[in-house]
Amino acid sequence: MTDEVVLLDFWPSPFGIRVRIALAEKGIKYTYIEEDLMSLKKSPLLLQMNPVQKKIPVLIHNGKTIFESLIAVQYIDEVWNDRSPLLPSDPYQRSQARFWAEYVDNKIYSIGRNIYTKKGEEQEVAKKEFIDTLKLLEEQLEEKSYFGGDKFGFVDISLIPFYSRLKVFETFGNLNLESECPKFIAWAKRCMQIESVSKSLPDQDKIYEFIVDMRKLLGIE
Amino acid sequence: MTDEVVLLDFWPSPFGIRVRIALAEKGIKYTYIEEDLMSLKKSPLLLQMNPVQKKIPVLIHNGKTIFESLIAVQYIDEVWNDRSPLLPSDPYQRSQARFWAEYVDNKIYSIGRNIYTKKGEEQEVAKKEFIDTLKLLEEQLEEKSYFGGDKFGFVDISLIPFYSRLKVFETFGNLNLESECPKFIAWAKRCMQIESVSKSLPDQDKIYEFIVDMRKLLGIE
Repeated sequence: MTDEVVLLDFWPSPFGIRVRIALAEKGIKYTYIEEDLMSLKKSPLLLQMNPVQKKIPVLIHNGKTIFESLIAVQYIDEVWNDRSPLLPSDPYQRSQARFWAEYVDNKIYSIGRNIYTKKGEEQEVAKKEFIDTLKLLEEQLEEKSYFGGDKFGFVDISLIPFYSRLKVFETFGNLNLESECPKFIAWAKRCMQIESVSKSLPDQDKIYEFIVDMRKLLGIE
Repeated sequence: MTDEVVLLDFWPSPFGIRVRIALAEKGIKYTYIEEDLMSLKKSPLLLQMNPVQKKIPVLIHNGKTIFESLIAVQYIDEVWNDRSPLLPSDPYQRSQARFWAEYVDNKIYSIGRNIYTKKGEEQEVAKKEFIDTLKLLEEQLEEKSYFGGDKFGFVDISLIPFYSRLKVFETFGNLNLESECPKFIAWAKRCMQIESVSKSLPDQDKIYEFIVDMRKLLGIE
């Protein structure tokens, strides 16, 4: 049977980008269906495919649906397990990869969002927490090329999509992440040398324009 | 090498209970170290073992620490993979088990907590959301004995610890879960027939007394 792989996604979504990178790492051909979340109206297809969450990304493999980006990345790694392993094979290393990938999941999006949607004290708290989180992640990197060691993997996939928001964070937060978190930036540039990453991340200026539009839509001055 | 397994835990914790059930399912002997979180002072051992989160449960296996209950359960399943599988072997079934286990994780504790810590409108919202969530989970059960089918597994381990709070939810929420969610209660009673579960869940009256004490500590009338 030929695999039929479909991804319901929205181009600026860091969660969708994770799945795109995983599919590219494995060299899997798939049909990309854009779900325009800026229209504020969810498509009948999305509502049919993910009735519980009504969220993208949705991976559809031979008619079966998989939700949640980190679960989808693990699914991709388990189904196409003959090439480019994304999670380590050792159970302890796997547990650590899962822990840090979820740590990124619980922190970076929500804190980062406050940098470009909040003002004053709330924004200042978000900026500090954002930098502190990146510094803690830098500590985990130690002197390794990637979070898992020599090879790009699960934690890298979890975090790198947010690099597409660099201009957003720096502009709205008045931050210089290269000077605050040089190891994070060096790691991100290293990831961007990988074709699966560079092809999956939208241009930083395009993401910046998107966030400007999104702020207008939300009535943020 | 003999495995040295230690669990830092706090007896009423639904997250700790998950790890206790998984260890019991696999028949693993371990040292249980109680972390008294009611004292509001975290032990030097906990701060040393889990400096990032400072939370229980912490599983320590041959000196290596594993955090987050669902990650610890997966770790236990992967290390002791020669007996009592907890996750399905099929990648798609695994993705669904992970999705629903995380769904429980994101919903039941926080919504359930609002039933016994909030009043008025906030409490009413929590009660409705709690019942709705259990009904959605009942739909997933269909006519199966357990969430994964005939065998007790990952989603069951994620959810069953909250059954120890039945009296808490019913008393503070003025709810009758047997009449509202009969399939959930029937499933929970089926799980309680399993020794690994019945031995790991504290008595419902004891948990009720604990919540009464916790409310006093938090100044809730």
